[in-house]
Amino acid sequence: MSAKSASAFSRLVERAREIALLDSINATLQWDQQTGMPPAAAEYRAEQIAWLAARSHALWTAPEVEEWLADAEASPDLSATDRGNLAVWQWSHRRAVCLPGRLVEKLARVSARAHEIWVEARRQNDFAAFAPSLEQLLALAREQADCWGYEAEPYDAHLEGYEPGLRAETLEKLFGGLAETATALAVAGEAAPPIPDLREFAPFPLEGQKKLNAMVAEAFGYDLAAGRIDESAHPFCTTLGPQDIRLTTRYDEADFTDSLFSVLHEAGHGIYEQNLPESAFGTPAGSALYLGLHESQSRLWENHIGRSRSFWEAWFPTMGEIFPQLRRTNPEQLWRHVNRIRRSFIRVEADEVTYDLHIVLRFRLERALFAGDLSVRDLPHAWQEGFAQLFGLTVPDDRRGCLQDVHWSGASFGYFPTYSLGNLRAAQIFQTARRALPNLEENLLRRDYQPLTGWLTKNLYRAGSILPPEEILQKLTGVTTSVTPYLEYLREKTGEWT
Amino acid sequence: MSAKSASAFSRLVERAREIALLDSINATLQWDQQTGMPPAAAEYRAEQIAWLAARSHALWTAPEVEEWLADAEASPDLSATDRGNLAVWQWSHRRAVCLPGRLVEKLARVSARAHEIWVEARRQNDFAAFAPSLEQLLALAREQADCWGYEAEPYDAHLEGYEPGLRAETLEKLFGGLAETATALAVAGEAAPPIPDLREFAPFPLEGQKKLNAMVAEAFGYDLAAGRIDESAHPFCTTLGPQDIRLTTRYDEADFTDSLFSVLHEAGHGIYEQNLPESAFGTPAGSALYLGLHESQSRLWENHIGRSRSFWEAWFPTMGEIFPQLRRTNPEQLWRHVNRIRRSFIRVEADEVTYDLHIVLRFRLERALFAGDLSVRDLPHAWQEGFAQLFGLTVPDDRRGCLQDVHWSGASFGYFPTYSLGNLRAAQIFQTARRALPNLEENLLRRDYQPLTGWLTKNLYRAGSILPPEEILQKLTGVTTSVTPYLEYLREKTGEWT
Repeated sequence: MSAKSASAFSRLVERAREIALLDSINATLQWDQQTGMPPAAAEYRAEQIAWLAARSHALWTAPEVEEWLADAEASPDLSATDRGNLAVWQWSHRRAVCLPGRLVEKLARVSARAHEIWVEARRQNDFAAFAPSLEQLLALAREQADCWGYEAEPYDAHLEGYEPGLRAETLEKLFGGLAETATALAVAGEAAPPIPDLREFAPFPLEGQKKLNAMVAEAFGYDLAAGRIDESAHPFCTTLGPQDIRLTTRYDEADFTDSLFSVLHEAGHGIYEQNLPESAFGTPAGSALYLGLHESQSRLWENHIGRSRSFWEAWFPTMGEIFPQLRRTNPEQLWRHVNRIRRSFIRVEADEVTYDLHIVLRFRLERALFAGDLSVRDLPHAWQEGFAQLFGLTVPDDRRGCLQDVHWSGASFGYFPTYSLGNLRAAQIFQTARRALPNLEENLLRRDYQPLTGWLTKNLYRAGSILPPEEILQKLTGVTTSVTPYLEYLREKTGEWT
Repeated sequence: MSAKSASAFSRLVERAREIALLDSINATLQWDQQTGMPPAAAEYRAEQIAWLAARSHALWTAPEVEEWLADAEASPDLSATDRGNLAVWQWSHRRAVCLPGRLVEKLARVSARAHEIWVEARRQNDFAAFAPSLEQLLALAREQADCWGYEAEPYDAHLEGYEPGLRAETLEKLFGGLAETATALAVAGEAAPPIPDLREFAPFPLEGQKKLNAMVAEAFGYDLAAGRIDESAHPFCTTLGPQDIRLTTRYDEADFTDSLFSVLHEAGHGIYEQNLPESAFGTPAGSALYLGLHESQSRLWENHIGRSRSFWEAWFPTMGEIFPQLRRTNPEQLWRHVNRIRRSFIRVEADEVTYDLHIVLRFRLERALFAGDLSVRDLPHAWQEGFAQLFGLTVPDDRRGCLQDVHWSGASFGYFPTYSLGNLRAAQIFQTARRALPNLEENLLRRDYQPLTGWLTKNLYRAGSILPPEEILQKLTGVTTSVTPYLEYLREKTGEWT
């Protein structure tokens, strides 16, 4: 029995590694697609990606996997790590086998078409053109939820996919207080004295931006010998192998902070991935599976470090060497520039304070759509009402309203809340780090990020994903997800500049 | 019976397309590896590549393929194209199933190690360090030859892999006369009056080189919407999909013609691949399988076009716009510069006249190694003797002798002759094109390459690979591979400048 279980477990490891290999190949194809694939290649690339995805899914839903899972479960002598891996595999296997192949295929087909329709609908500001696709995707997503099962509401079945145990009711409790405070802080923040626009100092040549971005990312701890920084329309971080974690950014000659903050954000993801236990690559113990934790690391490096006064003081001399025109300004001005608060319509352009308002709006609308309290037809109106309530602004059109994001056209329902979860957790983790590292502020002023990266590696990155995210967070910070440290952070920061 | 055969044939098409899909994914990984993969990623990339290669081999050697081949063969109603596809599949299937998996694996493992050993041995000029690897590879390659079978000599079994029916005896007949004339022309060519070195006009900024290379490749007919030009240590052309054919080159600021000629050469391969019948992608009818024909197209565009007087006259104004310093020279000088003849030690730096001497030497040595007439231990000495005979020069060391090429470390025996086959066939095909297109010279002077590209597409590229290469060539030029047009071309050209 024991030999059988041990062998079942090692076959699961082998299978998981094979799937990781396939998925990493797929990541390479997708990285290439985003960073310079010839336009005419798109159709065949979709076939290559679909082949790998289907093969990966088939390897995980094959009948033998179910047997191995049962045999391994019965083993008396698995280590705690083995048990953790097994629990995650059972969770992901259950979700994979629940869905009939027909539904998986249909969703892939419908969302591939819906993406093109959404691109055009957004361009034309024509929600009616996108509505039938969204209705179809929503119907399929509700069918998915029925397959997976749920207790309180169908939306929960989707949230569960981003992290085990995530529920809409919990999120509403967290987000309620967050939204109220954020709106108040935004109104106050907008009253801050005006600062000169950075664009007055433009242009910032791309070569200089690339140099600065790479220097900062490397200083944070991102290893360029096992990664690279490329250009893409939408910045991202992706894992092509245990020693191949790549970032992308986009460049604006008029404002070097655009590309810089994308790099800081993606480097946060990259540093997490680069410091996972490499020998466990392909298993939960060597993976960063939970988006709400992953996002905490991108936001920590982007906001708590990158938007701090010490960062701009520490890097100002280097910035002045690369862009001599910056010598006519000062670190304080630049720090204020990257912390301007302005309520605006587009999520991806939002500042730190108003960002979560965008998320709360989407979360509530998704929840209502899944509960049947909101129809797709009424979505634009509900968006306008919700936006007015949270932001006090009138949405001028659907292009700057409910048509702005790519997520729904890809049937990624439940994704948005992980962004705000990341913000909350980043504040909790950074607060803990400051307590654990009494010299942190001095280190940051000296551009010595090793103590922080080392602390995060030891306490978070090395943990992999064998515990549920809330347990990882609790072990690290003493509490589960909480809004308090984040609101303290926002209040303190806005207090400084208003 | 007929329904069964038809279904067998369509299942073969399906399988061939699946294998092409896997191979195109593998090509993407290898392209990435050569163009910018982070160094630390090499080990895992090798695993990804091996997984795809093994899967592709398994799909083609699976038992059902043999059944389908037999069933399809028995069908009375296959078209001529179908029959052509079937014949190539039978040939490639026979070669694939002959080899025991153990041997395929061992060769992959030994050559992966041998490559690293060769890199170091070449660096250190230490043939003794590489000799044991080469002995092992040669023994395995002879074992391969025994598996495949041969009539006259084991080397033939390897040549057969590059094109069906290729034999050492035929090659020696072609190469004998070629070598004698080439040596004489080289000696005469070196007596040409000296011209100023292009390096006196350096530097040639990379951006300008990229611009010029892309302009010329596009003018020839290479479609950049279905391709791109990147940088790599060793220039190559690769197919990532039916609409994704990429080139690479390398840059030298001191001489823009280095990167330009690499692009012209690789664009020749690329134009061939881009003009195959796209609907037949993945089957022999939609593939360019034979290296000795493929190389005819790279050499045609590189040499017959790129090293012609009309090319330099036609592009001189553009070159002068991009590199204003060139206005101090003239098209004639540049044309002479790219046609300098100089007997030298390194194949990849050789001029048009001496290039084949390098090939003939390697071909004869490979043949002797396989016949058992030459031992690996005696290879350096045999190289020196052969080089002295063909070039009249003394090889200073093995680094510039038998250690210079990558091919043997990868067990690619029989590859070298395809380069010279390409040279011979390029001359034959270009001679035919000139007869078929009476206004060709005018077109070339006007940079109008469409008539030539169109003629090649119609008469060569569209033919795919359903006929053996010699039949394709005979249909196109009226004769099989011949040395006469090539020698005429070389004699005429060297006569012009000596």
